Amino acid sequence: MAAPVVANGPGKEENRGGGGGGGSIGRPTNPMVTPLLTDLYQFTMAYAYWKAGKHNERAVFDLYFRKNPFGGEYTVFAGLDECIKLIANFKFTEDEIAFIQASLPPSCEIGFYNYLRGIDCSDVEIHAISEGFVVFPKIPLMRVEGPVAVVQLLETPLLNLVNYASLVATNAARHRFVAGKSKLLLEFGLRRAQGPDGGIGASKYCYMGGFDATSNVAAGQLFGIPLRGTHSHAFVSSFMSPDEIVEKSLKSSDGSSVCKDFVSSVQSWLSKLKRSQLLGGIFGETNQSEIAAFVSYALAFPQNFLALVDTYDVMRSGIPNFCAVALALNDLGYKAVGIRLDSGDLAYLSCETRKFFQGIEKEFKIAGFGKTSITASNDLNEETLDALNKQGHEVDAFGIGTHLVTCYAQPALGGVFKLVEINKQPRIKLSEDVSKVSIPCKKRSYRLYGKEGYPLVDIMTGENEPPPKVGERILCRHPFNESKRAYVVPQRVEELMKCFWPGQSGKVREELQPIKLIRERCINQLDLMRPDHMRRLNPTPYKVSVSAKLYDFIHFLWLNEAPVGELE
Amino acid sequence: MAAPVVANGPGKEENRGGGGGGGSIGRPTNPMVTPLLTDLYQFTMAYAYWKAGKHNERAVFDLYFRKNPFGGEYTVFAGLDECIKLIANFKFTEDEIAFIQASLPPSCEIGFYNYLRGIDCSDVEIHAISEGFVVFPKIPLMRVEGPVAVVQLLETPLLNLVNYASLVATNAARHRFVAGKSKLLLEFGLRRAQGPDGGIGASKYCYMGGFDATSNVAAGQLFGIPLRGTHSHAFVSSFMSPDEIVEKSLKSSDGSSVCKDFVSSVQSWLSKLKRSQLLGGIFGETNQSEIAAFVSYALAFPQNFLALVDTYDVMRSGIPNFCAVALALNDLGYKAVGIRLDSGDLAYLSCETRKFFQGIEKEFKIAGFGKTSITASNDLNEETLDALNKQGHEVDAFGIGTHLVTCYAQPALGGVFKLVEINKQPRIKLSEDVSKVSIPCKKRSYRLYGKEGYPLVDIMTGENEPPPKVGERILCRHPFNESKRAYVVPQRVEELMKCFWPGQSGKVREELQPIKLIRERCINQLDLMRPDHMRRLNPTPYKVSVSAKLYDFIHFLWLNEAPVGELE
Repeated sequence: MAAPVVANGPGKEENRGGGGGGGSIGRPTNPMVTPLLTDLYQFTMAYAYWKAGKHNERAVFDLYFRKNPFGGEYTVFAGLDECIKLIANFKFTEDEIAFIQASLPPSCEIGFYNYLRGIDCSDVEIHAISEGFVVFPKIPLMRVEGPVAVVQLLETPLLNLVNYASLVATNAARHRFVAGKSKLLLEFGLRRAQGPDGGIGASKYCYMGGFDATSNVAAGQLFGIPLRGTHSHAFVSSFMSPDEIVEKSLKSSDGSSVCKDFVSSVQSWLSKLKRSQLLGGIFGETNQSEIAAFVSYALAFPQNFLALVDTYDVMRSGIPNFCAVALALNDLGYKAVGIRLDSGDLAYLSCETRKFFQGIEKEFKIAGFGKTSITASNDLNEETLDALNKQGHEVDAFGIGTHLVTCYAQPALGGVFKLVEINKQPRIKLSEDVSKVSIPCKKRSYRLYGKEGYPLVDIMTGENEPPPKVGERILCRHPFNESKRAYVVPQRVEELMKCFWPGQSGKVREELQPIKLIRERCINQLDLMRPDHMRRLNPTPYKVSVSAKLYDFIHFLWLNEAPVGELE
Repeated sequence: MAAPVVANGPGKEENRGGGGGGGSIGRPTNPMVTPLLTDLYQFTMAYAYWKAGKHNERAVFDLYFRKNPFGGEYTVFAGLDECIKLIANFKFTEDEIAFIQASLPPSCEIGFYNYLRGIDCSDVEIHAISEGFVVFPKIPLMRVEGPVAVVQLLETPLLNLVNYASLVATNAARHRFVAGKSKLLLEFGLRRAQGPDGGIGASKYCYMGGFDATSNVAAGQLFGIPLRGTHSHAFVSSFMSPDEIVEKSLKSSDGSSVCKDFVSSVQSWLSKLKRSQLLGGIFGETNQSEIAAFVSYALAFPQNFLALVDTYDVMRSGIPNFCAVALALNDLGYKAVGIRLDSGDLAYLSCETRKFFQGIEKEFKIAGFGKTSITASNDLNEETLDALNKQGHEVDAFGIGTHLVTCYAQPALGGVFKLVEINKQPRIKLSEDVSKVSIPCKKRSYRLYGKEGYPLVDIMTGENEPPPKVGERILCRHPFNESKRAYVVPQRVEELMKCFWPGQSGKVREELQPIKLIRERCINQLDLMRPDHMRRLNPTPYKVSVSAKLYDFIHFLWLNEAPVGELE
C-alpha cells in the first residue's frame, strides 16, 4: 500500500500475536477486522469438529459468486489485499478467547479454548485471482485450503471483505464505462455510505474500479487516493453581503502587484457582464450572499477557485457571480477552475453555462475561458449519466455519491464459500435450484484467449489435470447443461489463481501490490474484454466452463449424493 | 454501553488529545471514526472561513431527512450515541494536521493549521431527539450549534453516522412489524454487509430496531447483543458417514447414565421412524453424510441441538435424520432445539415439518415434540415474510441477512445538514424543488398527542416562541403549502430535542444510554404510533408542521432571497 495503514492511530494492537509468518504484511485497514468478526456458527462448528477429532482434516473451500451484479455480465474482483492481511494477522487474543468461552454453552470442554489459543493461518494456503481482475460467476475467486476448523472460521470475514469490495469496484467500473474515459470521476459518497468504513471502503474500491479521486480525507490518508472538494451551499448562505468582507486585497499570481480592493474589481466585472450585448439581459441583480461567498472563497484559494452555483439560481445569479470573480482573478493572472452544478436540469444548465463561458471568451478575449470546467453532481447514477450522454451535455467532471457507494441498483453481491474437498474426498452441495449446486474438487482455472486477443472462455479443471495448451483443441463444457459445450483452440492460456499465502515454506508467494497498480490492472483488464460483454443493455454472457473430466465427475458425485425420489 | 467499546484492542489512541470535556464519554465504536473522516471541502471551507475571519461566527445547522425510507411513513432515529462520542473526542493529531496541510494548496497560510490544532467541540452545543425515537421528515434530528468552521467539519461524519444507522434500524422495525411480536428475529447479515462495520453497525441497529439476536460475534462482544448460530451446509458435507465417528458415547442429561453407542441409538430410531405407519413411506435411505454430521453436532452440543436440514433433501433426508437424533437425545433426557430451513418453499416445508414433528409426538408419546422450533432463512425480506404470513407457515424464528443489513429495498437514507442561522441571522437554502428548500431559524420542535394517546402532529417553532400548551388550541401549518393547516388541542406536549452536548458549563446534559434501554424505547415508541401510519401498504402520512409565526417568517425570507424572474 502506498500510504501507511492507519500510520500511528487506531491500528495498534500490541496484544495480538501475529499469525503464522505474516512478516511484512500489514494489518487490515479497519482495526475491527479481528478473528471475532465472524458468525457464531463458525465457532460452534469449530467446536463440533474439534470434539469429533476432525478439526485438522484438510479441507478445500472455494469462494465464488453465482451471478454478476447490476444486470451486467462482468464483475471486478476486489478485497483480496484485506483478506490476506486478515489471514497474516489471524490470532486470538486472551480477551477474545474469554468472550468466545462466555458465548458457547458451559458444557463445552476447556481443551477447545486451548486449541483456539494455538491456531493461526500458518497451515492455510490461499490461491486467488489477482485483485482488479475481471471475473465471472462460478469461477473461484479464492481457493482456501487448510485445517477444516480454521478455514471454517475464515468464511464470514473473507466473504465480508470480498463481497462489498467487488460490488463497489464493479459499480465504479460501470459508471466509468458510461461516463467515458475523458471525464473526471469523483467519488463523493461518504455521508450516505453504509457506516464509516462503508465510506472508506467505497473510496478505496471506487478508485480501484477507475474513479479519479474522492472527497473522503480519511481514505486519502489511508490509501493515497487523490482528494477533491470545494464548498457547499452552507458556505454560500453563511455570508450576508460583500460588505462583511474585511480583508479585500489580493496579490497577483506572479507576486508583482496587489489588487487593493478585489471586491470592487469583481463588482465592476459584474457591471460589465450586465451591460454586455452578448450576455446582458440574462440576469438582473445577483444574490449578494452568493457573491460575498464566491469572493471570500477566491481570496482563500485564488489558484483553485471552483464555485457551487445553484444555491439561489444558476443562470440568474450563480453563473454571472462566478464569472465576475473568475474575470477579476484573470486580471491578476489566476485561472479559475470552474463551477459545480448540484441541481436542476444538468444537461440544459451545463450547455447554457458553456455558452455563457464561450460568450465571455469571445467578448472579452479571454483565451480558454470557454473551456472553464463544469462539474455536475446530484444523485447521479449509470442511468442519469447515460441520459445526459443522449441529451448532450457540457459536463467535464461528475461527482457521484449515494448511488455509487451504496450500490443502490443492487446493494449486495452474493458471494459464497463452499466446501469442495475434505481429506482428499471431493464434496458437493446439492440444491433443488441447479444454480446453487456447488462444483466439487480442488480445482485450477484458466482463461483462454482467442485470435483477436479477447478472452473467450474460463475453464475449471481438476487440480491434477494437464493445463490447456496454446494451439491445442480443448472441449469446454457447461458445468450443469449437458448440451452446452464447445471446442476451443486457445491462442493464449492464463492460469487464473496464484498463491497469495503459503501453507508450506518454500512456495513462491505473490506480493500484495499498491492500490495504484491494482487500479491500472483493473483498467487494463476492462479494456481487454470484448465490447459486447461490457455494454449496458443486453450484454453477451461470457462463457464459464469445466473440462470434460470434471464434468463427468460432478455428475457422478451428484447422482451418488442425491436421494432417489419415489412418486406417490 | 453495556459492553466495553473495543475493550483493549483497536480503540487505543494515546496521541489524540480528547476533546472538550468528554469526560466519561467513550470513543466511537470504529476507531476509523476520526476528524479526518470527512469531506475535503469541509477543510477548504474551514480555511476560507478562517481566512475571512469568519470561523468563529456562531452557526446553527439542522440535521434532518426529507423522505421516510422504504415507501413507509416513519423512521427510527439511530446513531446519536456514536455522534456524541465523535464530538466528545474531536481533536486533531499532529499526523492528521500534517496530512491536511499536504492536501490543501501550498498557498494556505500556516496560521490555519495552528487554528486546527487548537479546536475541539467544547464550544459546540448539540440538541437532539433521543435515539430510538420514531421520527419524521423535515423535523431536525439534531441541531448543532457552534463556531461555523468547527460545525462545518462535523457535517460529513454526523451524516455518515446517522444515515445508515437510522436506515437499518427502520428496516429492522419494519421486518419486526411484518413478522409479528411472537417470532424470534435473528440478524445473519455479516457476510453480505457493506464492509466490516457495515456488518457491525447492522447488528447494533437491527437489535435496536427490535431484532432479538445476531450471528455476529464481534457485535456481541462490542454491544452485548445476544448471539445465535449453529452450523452450515459445509459442516454437513464435511462428513462422509457415521463410520468415521470415533467417540460415540454420550452421558445422559442428569449425568446418571452413559449411552455407549449414541450412533446405534440414532440408527435404531431411524429404523423405527421408517417402520412407523404414521411417518413411514415419506423417506427411504437418508443421507449418510448428513446423519454423521447431525450425530457429531449433537455429541458436541447435546443441550443445543439445532440442525440445518436442507443440504440434500429436506423431507426425505434432513427431517428424518434430525428426528432420529432428537429422539435419541430425548432418551437421554435432552430436548433438541429444532431445525433450520435454508432453501425451497418455506411455507410448505415448515408445515410438512410441523406435521412430522406432531406425528412423532403422537406416535411415540413425546410431549412437546410437536412444538420443536423451526427456523427459516434464505434471502428473506419484508415481502417474503408477508407472503409467508398469507400462505400460512409454521416458522418460529427467522434468520435474515442480505436484505436486512444492506437495506436492499432502499440502501441509503438521504439525511442532510443545513445552515439555518448564523450570527443570529436566519438562513434559507432555496431550490427549484420545493421539497429541498430548508426551514430557516434556530428552532424547537414538539410532538403533540391527542385524546387517544397517539401522536397527532410534530410542530416546529422559533427558538423563543412560547411552547404549545396542553389543552390550548394551536394552529399547525404545513411549512410550504399555504392551504394545509389545522388547529390542534394537544392532550400532551413533548419537546423533542434535548441537550446531549453542552456548549456552556452548567447546562444539564442527557446521558448516553445502554443499547438495551434504547431498544426498549424504540419498541415502546413504535407501539405508541397510530396503526395506520405503520402499515406496509398505503400508510397514512404523519403530519409535520410549523407554527404560524415560523410559517410567515419562512415565506418572508424566501421572497427576500429569491431572484425575481423575467419572462422572455
